[in-house]
Amino acid sequence: PHEKKKDPPLVHELKVSLEEVFSGCRKKMKISRKRLNPDGRTVLSEDKILSVDIKRGWKEGTKITFPREGDETPTNIPADVVFVVKDKPHPVFKREGSDIVYPANISLREALCGCTVNAPTLDGRTISVSSRDVVKPGTRKRIAGEGLPLSQCPEKRGNMILDFTVKFPDKLGQDARDALKLILPP
Amino acid sequence: PHEKKKDPPLVHELKVSLEEVFSGCRKKMKISRKRLNPDGRTVLSEDKILSVDIKRGWKEGTKITFPREGDETPTNIPADVVFVVKDKPHPVFKREGSDIVYPANISLREALCGCTVNAPTLDGRTISVSSRDVVKPGTRKRIAGEGLPLSQCPEKRGNMILDFTVKFPDKLGQDARDALKLILPP
Repeated sequence: PHEKKKDPPLVHELKVSLEEVFSGCRKKMKISRKRLNPDGRTVLSEDKILSVDIKRGWKEGTKITFPREGDETPTNIPADVVFVVKDKPHPVFKREGSDIVYPANISLREALCGCTVNAPTLDGRTISVSSRDVVKPGTRKRIAGEGLPLSQCPEKRGNMILDFTVKFPDKLGQDARDALKLILPP
Repeated sequence: PHEKKKDPPLVHELKVSLEEVFSGCRKKMKISRKRLNPDGRTVLSEDKILSVDIKRGWKEGTKITFPREGDETPTNIPADVVFVVKDKPHPVFKREGSDIVYPANISLREALCGCTVNAPTLDGRTISVSSRDVVKPGTRKRIAGEGLPLSQCPEKRGNMILDFTVKFPDKLGQDARDALKLILPP
């Protein structure tokens, strides 16, 4: 008969949290597909569970292909089903490759007079980082080994990066301004 | 004979300064190209000046095409020569569409106690902008009509944007820190 042609791949997003990338996990994805009946002409619809093992440290864009799990008809070769890993937004951290970024928001007084930042970790601990020096806006401090597992070498881990934002007062009274003029360099 | 095929376009960058985009200008571009001799088989090389009128407000990426100014051979149709406008980096301003951004670097004392910024304009004047309020890092102030001409309507102009960066002192002595703790909100 005619030569059968393969359908183009069916691509789905597979959203993973940073915690799932940190620990690794198994995701069960339900797909719905058509399969040929034994008569070779009619089709029936069925559900199938595809199981995806998210490995520790996997990067956004990683693809997992299940060959020929698309719809089957008398005249085609079923499409491949492809899942593409996508990071879910995290309530606290931003991901930068294998590093995670913690927004450390401090007041101007803390930035100038010293501060302690308590940062949560991916495994539920808290890390305290103190600074007695002036912290300039945009300063980044690295905490080695508290990031995500490296995808090529999951026993090693990236860093946590404290990303300092300095909150200025909305306004200052005239007395405060006069005093600051005497204290701060020009 | 054989059907002649057209060569793919020859693309060149045409770098323009913000001053040239501001005023408009004519750019003379020298190209070197081969032309068929009257015998129809041999070629000679010649230089040619192509003249490009840069209109006021032109955006990066604007293309100007000179049809068939590429090399001529017995068997081809000469390529089009295409110039693509690219902005030259400016020593003072950054371009954002029709706006120009002026980096206003102020000290922490100026940010808290008030400051005056003197910004140059594209046509050689100076604009003074004063602030008595607290200026937070990343604050942007717009000065209407001091940007580039709008490409679709050159009699109108975009804005100049003052982009404030606050320079913190590298360090502070213990006396200054103790005093600041009393003045600044927590």
